[in-house]
Amino acid sequence: MQGKEETVAGTPAARRALSGLEYMQMLVAGELPVSGMSELMGFRLAEVSAGYAVIIITPEERHYNGLGIVHGGLAATLLDSALGVAINTMLPAGKVFTTLEMKINYVRPIQSETGEIRCVANVIHVGGRVATAEGRVEDANGKLYAHGTATCMLFRER
Amino acid sequence: MQGKEETVAGTPAARRALSGLEYMQMLVAGELPVSGMSELMGFRLAEVSAGYAVIIITPEERHYNGLGIVHGGLAATLLDSALGVAINTMLPAGKVFTTLEMKINYVRPIQSETGEIRCVANVIHVGGRVATAEGRVEDANGKLYAHGTATCMLFRER
Amino acid sequence: MQGKEETVAGTPAARRALSGLEYMQMLVAGELPVSGMSELMGFRLAEVSAGYAVIIITPEERHYNGLGIVHGGLAATLLDSALGVAINTMLPAGKVFTTLEMKINYVRPIQSETGEIRCVANVIHVGGRVATAEGRVEDANGKLYAHGTATCMLFRER
Amino acid sequence: MQGKEETVAGTPAARRALSGLEYMQMLVAGELPVSGMSELMGFRLAEVSAGYAVIIITPEERHYNGLGIVHGGLAATLLDSALGVAINTMLPAGKVFTTLEMKINYVRPIQSETGEIRCVANVIHVGGRVATAEGRVEDANGKLYAHGTATCMLFRER
Repeated sequence: MQGKEETVAGTPAARRALSGLEYMQMLVAGELPVSGMSELMGFRLAEVSAGYAVIIITPEERHYNGLGIVHGGLAATLLDSALGVAINTMLPAGKVFTTLEMKINYVRPIQSETGEIRCVANVIHVGGRVATAEGRVEDANGKLYAHGTATCMLFRER
Repeated sequence: MQGKEETVAGTPAARRALSGLEYMQMLVAGELPVSGMSELMGFRLAEVSAGYAVIIITPEERHYNGLGIVHGGLAATLLDSALGVAINTMLPAGKVFTTLEMKINYVRPIQSETGEIRCVANVIHVGGRVATAEGRVEDANGKLYAHGTATCMLFRER
Repeated sequence: MQGKEETVAGTPAARRALSGLEYMQMLVAGELPVSGMSELMGFRLAEVSAGYAVIIITPEERHYNGLGIVHGGLAATLLDSALGVAINTMLPAGKVFTTLEMKINYVRPIQSETGEIRCVANVIHVGGRVATAEGRVEDANGKLYAHGTATCMLFRER
Repeated sequence: MQGKEETVAGTPAARRALSGLEYMQMLVAGELPVSGMSELMGFRLAEVSAGYAVIIITPEERHYNGLGIVHGGLAATLLDSALGVAINTMLPAGKVFTTLEMKINYVRPIQSETGEIRCVANVIHVGGRVATAEGRVEDANGKLYAHGTATCMLFRER
């Protein structure tokens, strides 16, 4: 919930004073409130390092589409988050990003029987104004379900 | 919830006997159970015709990412649904589709103040084995927030 | 050939004094040297207006891949050019763009028997820093062969 | 030139009798005629193994766009070829592919001073009916200029 962000650590001011990696490490450590979408969908940021992020979720029937498999929007949501976090870990304090576009390939259907899945993201390129990253959605055995890339624009925060 | 699909109209058998357009028209009319994801996120299929679909949602803080705007996964979820439905409306009974890939551009941030948004999808190409569609996410004034395309593969159901 | 750009109209200085639309209109009128790639591949800019561009080519066997059809790179080249020109027509003098990414769907094979094809591009969104456009590759009867979109970043020229 | 494909090895019949990898190895070895586009643009297939392909070119001013850098269509052409070849190396005799879509990110401008560039492609996923691959365009020092992915559909040849 956004309301929770009124705690000190989660304020925009706190965010501005930390590098992207420091901020994301606090999020992994549970020292920051999670986002509304993260709570709604049930995913969590499990791991970060420079240029790298892992998001975890256990898909359930509440994530299904009308075809009896997990909705494509779930993998897209994980990928959007993980790619953004991976890029964010490369940004110094005061620099922010916005996602311009994302592309996702669906390789296999995900079902509740699939069990816990991980979206693993790695930065491909980080320039002064633009960054790109790629990610994979896998199960516990490393079997691939979806993969994709995103393009982000980088700014100095006003 | 998927469990609800045990009602007669929502069974896979019923689905197989109807054309994609007939099935989707029943969904718009509220004669079929909605999917888990639709219930979880709060969107609904508002309009369909041949090659066309409109999905509606009112974004709230529960859809937010950690940056204080709606998570990119929401627009991606709407787009994935609307593009799939638009393609589905072109399929005769017994023919099904699977989404191979989707690409989304984010043009403006969505916030709870944006009010109701619509994802409007149109088919671009429907061949024997492959179909493509494009869609736009707009507010009540037609202002554009995101747009994208998808590629689907078409099958005869076994 | 780039060497030809040493003529007055084609200089970077001239380019900077003209709006994107004015520059592109001179290119259509044949008052500017064409690019190396345009000469190599044999395409030409046939039409421009604000947010709109048409590029024309007659595919030949020299554009073929090893499968006996026109190489996907030809449609990608036309699309990259036409989308860039369409966006360029929206820029005032002194503003330039760079293409961040492009996505293309191949809908039907192109062959030399296809005859003249046109890549028709339209701007989707032009903001202060980012623009997007979409385009279609069609034959003389409007039959669709490929379609795609691109994302460009916009700058003030230093 | 396609005409050259009337030599024995290059016939469609020969192609059908060889696995994709065998065919591509002959192409690398110079035992098969190159395609029209390869000759026109000046690129060549330099290396293949199972799920892997490298294409090489030395960019020149004849590959330039009107902005004084290499046209985006060149990297797109290399990527389309390399991704297709990488997927082709995974196909048994009698199985063929068609590219459904490709997406390319442009990370840095390429110029004639860049020297020889390589497009290195790797398969991501090969299923029964669909395959995906990713590729990078790099210079001799491994500096990245572009990267992308493609989705191909696989068929038994009729």
